[in-house]
Parts: sequence; structure tokens; C-alpha cells
Amino acid sequence: MALIVQKYGGTSVGNPERIKAVAQRVAKYHAQGHQLVVVVSAMSGETNRLIALAKEIQSQPDPRELDVIASTGEQVTIGLTAMALQALGLKARSYTGAQVRILTDSAHTKARILAIDEQRMRADLNAGHIVVVAGFQGVDEAGNITTLGRGGSDTTGVALAAALKADECQIFTDVDGVYTTDPRIVPEARRLERITFEEMLELASLGSKVLQIRSVEFAGKYKVKLRVLSSFSDENSGTLITYEDEKTMEQPIISGIAFNRDEAKITVLGVPDKPGIAYQILGAVADANIDVDVIVQNIGHEGLTDFSFTVNRNEYDKTMQLLQNSVKPKVQARDVIGDRKIAKVSLVGVGMRSHVGIASKMFKTLADESINIQMISTSEIKISVIIDEKYMELAVRALHRAFDLDQVSA
Amino acid sequence: MALIVQKYGGTSVGNPERIKAVAQRVAKYHAQGHQLVVVVSAMSGETNRLIALAKEIQSQPDPRELDVIASTGEQVTIGLTAMALQALGLKARSYTGAQVRILTDSAHTKARILAIDEQRMRADLNAGHIVVVAGFQGVDEAGNITTLGRGGSDTTGVALAAALKADECQIFTDVDGVYTTDPRIVPEARRLERITFEEMLELASLGSKVLQIRSVEFAGKYKVKLRVLSSFSDENSGTLITYEDEKTMEQPIISGIAFNRDEAKITVLGVPDKPGIAYQILGAVADANIDVDVIVQNIGHEGLTDFSFTVNRNEYDKTMQLLQNSVKPKVQARDVIGDRKIAKVSLVGVGMRSHVGIASKMFKTLADESINIQMISTSEIKISVIIDEKYMELAVRALHRAFDLDQVSA
Repeated sequence: MALIVQKYGGTSVGNPERIKAVAQRVAKYHAQGHQLVVVVSAMSGETNRLIALAKEIQSQPDPRELDVIASTGEQVTIGLTAMALQALGLKARSYTGAQVRILTDSAHTKARILAIDEQRMRADLNAGHIVVVAGFQGVDEAGNITTLGRGGSDTTGVALAAALKADECQIFTDVDGVYTTDPRIVPEARRLERITFEEMLELASLGSKVLQIRSVEFAGKYKVKLRVLSSFSDENSGTLITYEDEKTMEQPIISGIAFNRDEAKITVLGVPDKPGIAYQILGAVADANIDVDVIVQNIGHEGLTDFSFTVNRNEYDKTMQLLQNSVKPKVQARDVIGDRKIAKVSLVGVGMRSHVGIASKMFKTLADESINIQMISTSEIKISVIIDEKYMELAVRALHRAFDLDQVSA
Repeated sequence: MALIVQKYGGTSVGNPERIKAVAQRVAKYHAQGHQLVVVVSAMSGETNRLIALAKEIQSQPDPRELDVIASTGEQVTIGLTAMALQALGLKARSYTGAQVRILTDSAHTKARILAIDEQRMRADLNAGHIVVVAGFQGVDEAGNITTLGRGGSDTTGVALAAALKADECQIFTDVDGVYTTDPRIVPEARRLERITFEEMLELASLGSKVLQIRSVEFAGKYKVKLRVLSSFSDENSGTLITYEDEKTMEQPIISGIAFNRDEAKITVLGVPDKPGIAYQILGAVADANIDVDVIVQNIGHEGLTDFSFTVNRNEYDKTMQLLQNSVKPKVQARDVIGDRKIAKVSLVGVGMRSHVGIASKMFKTLADESINIQMISTSEIKISVIIDEKYMELAVRALHRAFDLDQVSA
């Protein structure tokens, strides 16, 4: 008998029929003798409806009151889910974030979980109940309702699993696992049986939108065994996210290829190559609340260097304006240039740590397709390149083939 | 500066525009220097929508889970109302029933308020905030969400006013006060400036659906000054519900005429006139969960008497069946007869305590219109008659005229 936390997203609980299907699935696990805590999101579309309602009243809704309103979405789902379980003859009981109690800080609409009281859930589980908990929400020290921000239900699931020391946290979603890359671009893309925590982090942040990055970080911190599964099919056991010390077999060198065309690149040309320049440029960008992703600076020549970075494409104009007007004169740059038609393609795999030649193989593959590389950035388990947007699919397909990702490795 | 609790029902907060109008009205009172606690219902239609959703999952929804779901209706409204007040530049803060904390018993879907912690509201009021509280809901000792049942928002308003020792509890509704009778039947019906608590109780229970009877009882218990006002017009100050010791002027003899055609009458004929008979008949009816309204038993003759009562018309068939099959043989009644085409018309007024001749004037008025009286029942401040349904409007109009209810009395 295991203690399992299952999380079902908005699509999985999108209407009464689907909620009944979720109950059927939970019942199946329960019949196998497992104890179950079920975390649910708001029915799909509900959170947007509530936020739109709030904006009809106040164009910039007050964060505290917005949380009061938005949190009702999950509250409805927990009641419906508990009822659906009861309709199958099971004992079930719902809890809001405040009832659990999921204590958070007071950062409304983007609160962070501080502590979870697991006593009440534990008592219910021991009494044979299935516990249904609202995702995405909590309560602060003063009793105010908070929400964790978009995707927060994944985090709730992981946090509950950590607090309860659950055997596994299963995230049910509309895909059946983590793939080597997006099957819409590479039909041969293959589901990974397992992936390491670090790889998952890189893939998540690079655009494989299976799990919220924050929930993966949380899982890593508490070593929660995390599994991504399809809520619409029973065909396979999804993808298990592992921690390195659990590895029992050789990891494949490369796990997957992530890509993203939401970014734009900007280069500050000919800035003095001296301490403080990176800060003078990026500090101004950060002060304007603009998120930066890739940052590249190569060695300088004759006292000058070029500084490049990428931002979200929506913030390209704003960033260019800021750099032209305030930063360029201050850092005495020669010019600021940019391009919004770029894509980022990344190879991810813990295996690359111990395998030389991955980068060169990547660059050769792209060269063979006559794809020019504009920027390169690397980490321990990832190599990212910035290329012209129009070659993105071609690059992903070529790399997927070159690294044999469609082959199941031992 | 007064402390005022205002309650706005579902129609008053039915859409974002109306919520903004409520905020405007609250702001007006605030500008006059008053401290305000605003109780709101769910937006009209919302509670029904949520209950229908629950019934799609479970035909007999679990009461605990139904409360979890239904309580979200008011939770959305409090957030929107607080935002609307903030949009006017006011400080406002919303609270769910659990947050206040409105402690109730655990009778889900029909909980009763046990205690209210007014500290948090008081602190907010003293800090210049307008406090917005969800009506209809509370929390039990174990932290479960409860609801007070339909119309419970009125009760919330009154209970908060009692806990805060508010100067006045204002119930904003879609009518502008309590009338001498229904203006749809008697166009000359007049709004009452004030009415006593006891009269209000009699009028409410008799079908003048302005206030929930439970909230009036609650108000009486704690002597809460209650005022019914229109949320769509500022033309008048509604109707104030007073307590007898506050009366500064002579009460009019009759305050109003209530009527009701939702009932049916049943008579058990020729039962032995001996102790225990009333119980044998009504005990069986109560055991079947059938509510009884008027009960009349006259003196017997030759050891036999007739026993009459009224029930809701929907339960007429069920009651007749019960009486014919189980009660009649047991009490050895001669027969059981009934009539569903009846109406109840009641004169209400504390003044009738000290004025003889009210009853006879009532009966004469009906006789002058050739209306036969089938049953009569009286209390200290009320005389009810059961008549043929088809004469109901005629009776109400004749009585309204006979008792000069269209004239403003000093």
C-alpha cells in the first residue's frame, strides 16, 4: 500500500463528465489498496472567466481581492470531485488551501508555500477517506486567501507529497509524459520512461510545457518522486522524474530537445570591456521588470566587447527603447542592434557531462543543414543555440535524428 | 457617526454594473461619516447554477461538499464588491464567513450561527476600511464550510449587526419597504414608515416576502434595529422595524394584510373528543415531515369533534393519503375531507391587542362582500381567516379599505 498524491489539471476536470472519469481513475488506484490525496485545478476556462469578471470592476484588480475571487474556481472543483467519488461509494472529503492549511507568504497572486499542516489529511487517510485538495491556493499567516499563480496546482501537488512523505506524486495532464521533443514537429519523438530532475528543469524552462518549472524545483528540493501521466489514457506509465542517486542504468546521453520562438535577441555593440558593464546594461533591464533569458558575452578586442541577451518577444520594443535611450549613452556603446525573428534550440541531457563531442556533433549537424548559429550558450547538461526562426523545425528534426532520439536506448 | 451594516441581495449585485451601483451607494454613506459593514449575496442565478452543477455529479449532493461549492457564489461577490469600492478610492477588504469567523453548528446547508468574532472587522473599521462580508455562510468548529440555507444572507447581516452592536442593519432589496399589503392586488397599498418586530414576524410568515423570517427572529432576539430599503431608489427611507419599548407614537391599529394561497385545508370529521386525539393526528403528520400551518379545533358535541388544519398545497395529496390510510382508522374518525382551493387572509397589527371590535369588523367586511369564512384562527396581533381561493383578492381589497390602510395615520 502506497500513499499517492495525484494532481489533475483544468482540462482533466473540465466538465462534470470528466470529473466523473477522474473519480473512476482515482477509484481504480484506491481499489489497489493505495491511500490517495487528489489535487484539482479549476475547471478549464473558469479562472479566466473569474479574472475577466474582476477586470470588469477594476481594470487593475486588487491582488488580495483577486485571490478571493480566483480561488473559488478550485473550490468548486474539490466539492464536485469529492461528490463524484462519493457517488462511486467511496469516502471522500474536500479541503480548500486554507482548510488544509497550506500556509503561504502574503504575495497575493504569486504566493510561495511556507508550510503545510498534514495532520487533518493524515487523519482522514487513516480513516479510509480519499482527500481532495484545491490546487493553486493557500492562506497567509493573517488568514488571507492567497494563490500561487498560474500552474500553481502542480506545485500544490508536489508540496503535499513532500509534506505527507508520499510514495509518489502523479501529475495527470493531457499528454502522457515527457517526450524527446515536440511530436508535432518531429513525429518520431519518443516518450521518455524516466528523466532526471535536472534534465526536467532544463526542458521545462526551455519550453516543454508539461510541468511547471516551479513544481519541478520544489520536487527536487524534497526529492519527491514525480510522475507525469495522461489523464485520458491508461496505456502507459508516463514519465518518471528521478534523482541521480536513484539511477540504476546508464542514462542516455541526450534526453530531449527543447525549443522556443518566444524570444528576441538584442546586442549592445562595442561597449568598453571593463568591470561593471554587464551590470550597467542588465541592471537597467531588470529595473524595468524585463526578464532576460540567454546572456552571452564573448572576449573583447581592443578594449571593446559585445554583449548579447534574449528577452521575451513581447518586450523587445520596450527593451530596445530603454537601451537606445538610457543605456547606450551611459555605457558609451557603439550601437544597439536586435532581431525578433530568432529561435532557441537546446539539447538537454545529463549524459553530456561525461561525453565529449556532443557540442561539436550538434554544431556539425546544424552546419550540414546550412543553419547559421547566431549565439551559443551552455550549461552542464544543456547546449542552447540561437538561430534564425525559420530554421527552427529543420534544426529540431535534424538534431533528433543525429542523436538517435527516436531509438530506445538501453 | 454611526456603525451601519448593509445587506445587498442577489438582484442588487446581479452583474458588474449593479455591483458598481452598490459601491456608489455605500460610498455615499461612507462620505456621511458612517462606518460600514457590507454583506452581499451571490450574484443572482449563481447559487442555482452551482447547485445544478453539483446535481450533475450527484443527484443527492453531499451536504458538506454542496456547502463547499455553494459558498463560492458569495465569495466571488465579496471580492468584486471590495474591488468596486477600491475603484472609488475607498479602502475596502473582503471576508468569507470562515475568515470573519462566523461560527455555526455543523448542520450543512441549514446551519445556525453560534458566535461571531467581531475583532478583525472592528480593527478594519477603526483603520478606515469598509468591511465586505459574504452572506449565507460560516464555518463550524472543525473548520468545515457551512451555509445558512436560502435567505441566509439576511441572517448574516442581522447577526453581524448584533455582534458589532451596530446602530442599524439595513436590508437593501428590490422593494422599498414593507407595505400594508401587496400593491399588485391593492394599488392603494401604502409603505409603512415603521412596523413592530412582532408584526413583521407575522407578516413575514404569512407571505410578505420582504425579509427572511429567520433574520427577523434573530433581530428581535438581539434588538437589532432593522430597516428594509430599496437598492434601486433613494426616494425614501424604507421601513424601520421597531421594538415596542421604542414606540414614541401611537401605533396604528392594523399594520397590514397578508395573504397566501399556497395552502390546502384538511378536516378530520367526528373524532372522539378526548385527550390525545390532536397528538394522534398531528404526530403522524409531523412524523411524515409535513409542515402544518393553521390548526383549528372547536368545542365538541356529543363526544365528537372536528379537527382542521392547513398544509402546503404540494403536500395535500400525501397528507390526505396518510390520514385516510393510517390516521382515520386509528382515531376512529367518521371521515377525512379536504379542499385545496383555499386562501388565507390575515390582519396583522399590535394595535389590535388594545382595540376590541377588530375581529367583528373584519368578519362584517367579509360578510358585506358575501365571502364565507371557513376557518378562523387568531393570535395576539393577528386574525387569520380561511376562505375560498377565488375571493382572496376581493377580501384583501375590502379589508384594506375598511381598515383605512391607504390613509397615513398619525
